[in-house]
Amino acid sequence: MTDVTGLTVGVLGGTGPQGKGLALRWARAGIKVIIGSRSSQRAEATAAELGEGTTGADNPTTAAAADVVLVAVPWEGHGDLLTSLRDQLRGKIVIDCVNPLGFDKQGPFALPVEEGSAAQQAEKLLPESRVTAAFHHVSAVHLVDLSIAELNTDVLVLGDDRDATDVVRALADAVPGMRGVYGGRLRNAHQVEAFTANLIAINRRYKAHAGIRITDV
Amino acid sequence: MTDVTGLTVGVLGGTGPQGKGLALRWARAGIKVIIGSRSSQRAEATAAELGEGTTGADNPTTAAAADVVLVAVPWEGHGDLLTSLRDQLRGKIVIDCVNPLGFDKQGPFALPVEEGSAAQQAEKLLPESRVTAAFHHVSAVHLVDLSIAELNTDVLVLGDDRDATDVVRALADAVPGMRGVYGGRLRNAHQVEAFTANLIAINRRYKAHAGIRITDV
Repeated sequence: MTDVTGLTVGVLGGTGPQGKGLALRWARAGIKVIIGSRSSQRAEATAAELGEGTTGADNPTTAAAADVVLVAVPWEGHGDLLTSLRDQLRGKIVIDCVNPLGFDKQGPFALPVEEGSAAQQAEKLLPESRVTAAFHHVSAVHLVDLSIAELNTDVLVLGDDRDATDVVRALADAVPGMRGVYGGRLRNAHQVEAFTANLIAINRRYKAHAGIRITDV
Repeated sequence: MTDVTGLTVGVLGGTGPQGKGLALRWARAGIKVIIGSRSSQRAEATAAELGEGTTGADNPTTAAAADVVLVAVPWEGHGDLLTSLRDQLRGKIVIDCVNPLGFDKQGPFALPVEEGSAAQQAEKLLPESRVTAAFHHVSAVHLVDLSIAELNTDVLVLGDDRDATDVVRALADAVPGMRGVYGGRLRNAHQVEAFTANLIAINRRYKAHAGIRITDV
């Protein structure tokens, strides 16, 4: 098992629901977490709200200070943000959890992405980083609800760098009830991102906060 | 709960591993099953092998005689077969479980489909049928292994016709250990089909026959 207890995780978009929720769970698991945001003041406010030793900073400072960086920003700003942080993210493990989705009156649907997926766009924009894709399907509502002690969900971890995916799997395993499962190469990230549209459709039909488990593993 | 005990299910491509496995499980659950194949002799041979009251016929005869038709043929022949069976499939529930995948030295990957997905191609070719998508992720190895009494997997059922998806969910529920879960509209079928590439990657990494469960539902 890869040891992640000494790592510092930076969360770009750490003031949004998904980033904030994962930051909280990692911090409670004893991992050092920096909340990143366009505004350092908003980042610091979120860190103060979360407690658990988290700190806040603007996105470039967060990226520079972290060993592993979670990208949890809205799809609209994804490409521009990563392009601006190429230097700070050099050599680092980047975890992309962004789901390019659209919504209309029939509900959610997957947006086409020129590079194939958000993760592949990150790989293209960050050629000197170690890009992985993970944490797309974890319910933000469950993450911030500390009455849920065990989250009961698997995290699919995709990437072409075995050591990097092992670290990310260990970051999933660090959260009680969460399990990291290798989920394929980065070229198979599109369907994992897009599947979030199906989970949203499931949530609407069943009034749930659905996640997935992989069986026989 | 929708009652499916009186239905006849036809399985196009019923001599292949996925079709054969589902046919076996349905027949054991007391559902009338017809094995379809290009060759009526091969279909009859598979039915004789499976027993459990199954019968075999060529694909057009199977489609004409069934109430619900599972399409379990290779992606290569998908469009041509459905075009040829438009008359026989009129008004019927069609379940597409086809996964358009390619393989190279890096493993499996999703093929692009002009209509978006195999299921959407079926919908386009069969405008007078009630097209659903389901049973993409069920391990053929587990289906035919009767030492596995309970399959421990969910079946995502997609479609725009509520009554049709309810029937297909009930066909999943009829098999011990299998559960049908509504998984969204047909326009969100691509990622469900493509996700089979990820499950194959998981199987290779973990030496497993992976399936999925939806949590919190």
